[in-house]
Amino acid sequence: MLTILFSAPDALWNQYEEVLPAALSAKRVDGTLVRDADPAAVDYIVYAPNDRLHDFTPFTKARAVLSLFAGVDRIVGNTTLTQPLTRLVDPGLAEGMVEWVTGQVLMHHLHLDRNLGAAPHWVQNAPPLARDRRVTLLGLGELGMACADMLRALHFDLRGWSRSAKDAPFPTSHGTDGLKQALDGAEIVITLLPDTPDTRNILNAESLRWPARGAVVINPGRGPLIDDEALLAALADGRIGHAVLDVFRVEPLPADHPYWAHPRVTVSPHIAAVSRPTSASLVVAENIRRSEASEPLLFLVDRSRGY
Amino acid sequence: MLTILFSAPDALWNQYEEVLPAALSAKRVDGTLVRDADPAAVDYIVYAPNDRLHDFTPFTKARAVLSLFAGVDRIVGNTTLTQPLTRLVDPGLAEGMVEWVTGQVLMHHLHLDRNLGAAPHWVQNAPPLARDRRVTLLGLGELGMACADMLRALHFDLRGWSRSAKDAPFPTSHGTDGLKQALDGAEIVITLLPDTPDTRNILNAESLRWPARGAVVINPGRGPLIDDEALLAALADGRIGHAVLDVFRVEPLPADHPYWAHPRVTVSPHIAAVSRPTSASLVVAENIRRSEASEPLLFLVDRSRGY
Repeated sequence: MLTILFSAPDALWNQYEEVLPAALSAKRVDGTLVRDADPAAVDYIVYAPNDRLHDFTPFTKARAVLSLFAGVDRIVGNTTLTQPLTRLVDPGLAEGMVEWVTGQVLMHHLHLDRNLGAAPHWVQNAPPLARDRRVTLLGLGELGMACADMLRALHFDLRGWSRSAKDAPFPTSHGTDGLKQALDGAEIVITLLPDTPDTRNILNAESLRWPARGAVVINPGRGPLIDDEALLAALADGRIGHAVLDVFRVEPLPADHPYWAHPRVTVSPHIAAVSRPTSASLVVAENIRRSEASEPLLFLVDRSRGY
Repeated sequence: MLTILFSAPDALWNQYEEVLPAALSAKRVDGTLVRDADPAAVDYIVYAPNDRLHDFTPFTKARAVLSLFAGVDRIVGNTTLTQPLTRLVDPGLAEGMVEWVTGQVLMHHLHLDRNLGAAPHWVQNAPPLARDRRVTLLGLGELGMACADMLRALHFDLRGWSRSAKDAPFPTSHGTDGLKQALDGAEIVITLLPDTPDTRNILNAESLRWPARGAVVINPGRGPLIDDEALLAALADGRIGHAVLDVFRVEPLPADHPYWAHPRVTVSPHIAAVSRPTSASLVVAENIRRSEASEPLLFLVDRSRGY
């Protein structure tokens, strides 16, 4: 009988306490899920950032730490964490992200927001087709590629950028030198990168000059990808037309933050992609099954890259 | 040298006068495009509803009437029209329709409109996944099936309805008897039907009771598909939560129409799908080439069905 420590805030426990044991059972993992245990007795740690667990040193027997989140930036730099760390790539999370990104891109591509509460005014300005709309996606990981597939199915003129070179069925560039090429002339920019020293402030005073004038920035990735002061300046002078932000350096976004009141900023409360406990639990359980069977873990974090 | 009469309003002439001759040339059709001609000398009529041409009797030599619109309801009942009539199925039109329908469905599925101009209020209510959202599509023609493909790619729980039975890779029903089954419990209803005696007022006081309470109605099809009084009543009592209307019985929608001021009606000025002259011209030119080569015409209207 494995001892599986659930180290995450109460709100997550409420969501997982029934479905995760069910998933373990479905994967034929003989384990008991606990919220507290003698560290030396713990076999696996199911983890989300919380106030209690910062030092992984006492977990001498633990064979893996299984994040309930896709983003592991709050734990990957923890030097006490020597066990294998997995991210959560939940099929439900990817679906939700694809829906949100596609919805935001289409809303701004088609200016659907402009028709809301319209005065009687019949002007037939049809937008260009998606094939004539330049969209740039920064980040070509699992979530980025899932979004790319859908945007390509809609025929958007898509370009991609990633830190290292990626094979993709659409034009991509990579690395610091490739960023300008990716952003040049973009009308819609989507940031779907992990938060690493290389990606922090990737949209800054310089790079925010490269998209087309009036471009829309959509950030469902990580708050620190954007230099907030630079974005506010770019919005003020019209270089950026609108920003849709789902993630922030500080969450919840403080009530006095200028983003809230800005007429051309849409604040979304970090809901672009949320894990669905049912599908997420199956991924966690599958990784415990794999570990016990000495099979390779899914979604293992590469500490050198930080994700 | 064929004589091709362009019988359509000036606004369309301005869009087509250069690209349609270019398309004829690309299709190796030896023809001259004119706005006026001796009816007896006309080989083909390129047509959109206009104030001048109501009687097709004098066009004794005309071998086909080629509509510039997908909807032919304003001409199909004209008893003087005895020539083959083709609808315009423009690949650009279908793409635009797919973009608009997908954008509207996602906006309402994700409640993206509710975040606009939000007061500082951080509440993380993630919507269900598309796979848990019931969408019903009334109309499974070329445009409907193109929309269905994209909604299925997004994993929406899609059902379809058409007047006559259709093969589709998702649950469908048909005919008067099948309508209730299609609409029952739908959270988003899309009307993409032609305007025929059978489809007129298909959303009426009775059928508007069948979707889920608070359902969203999206009409990019034809104005008369909806009984406007019944829709306003259903909006008033909350059975219908929101309506997005792109087409109306009278267009432009009169300034005093209650739809304009209604907080839960989005008026879109008939732009969900507009023909793009470049791609549309190639379809028209291809049909003239086919007619001259005695090949079957594309998108030939079935007068008995009315579309």
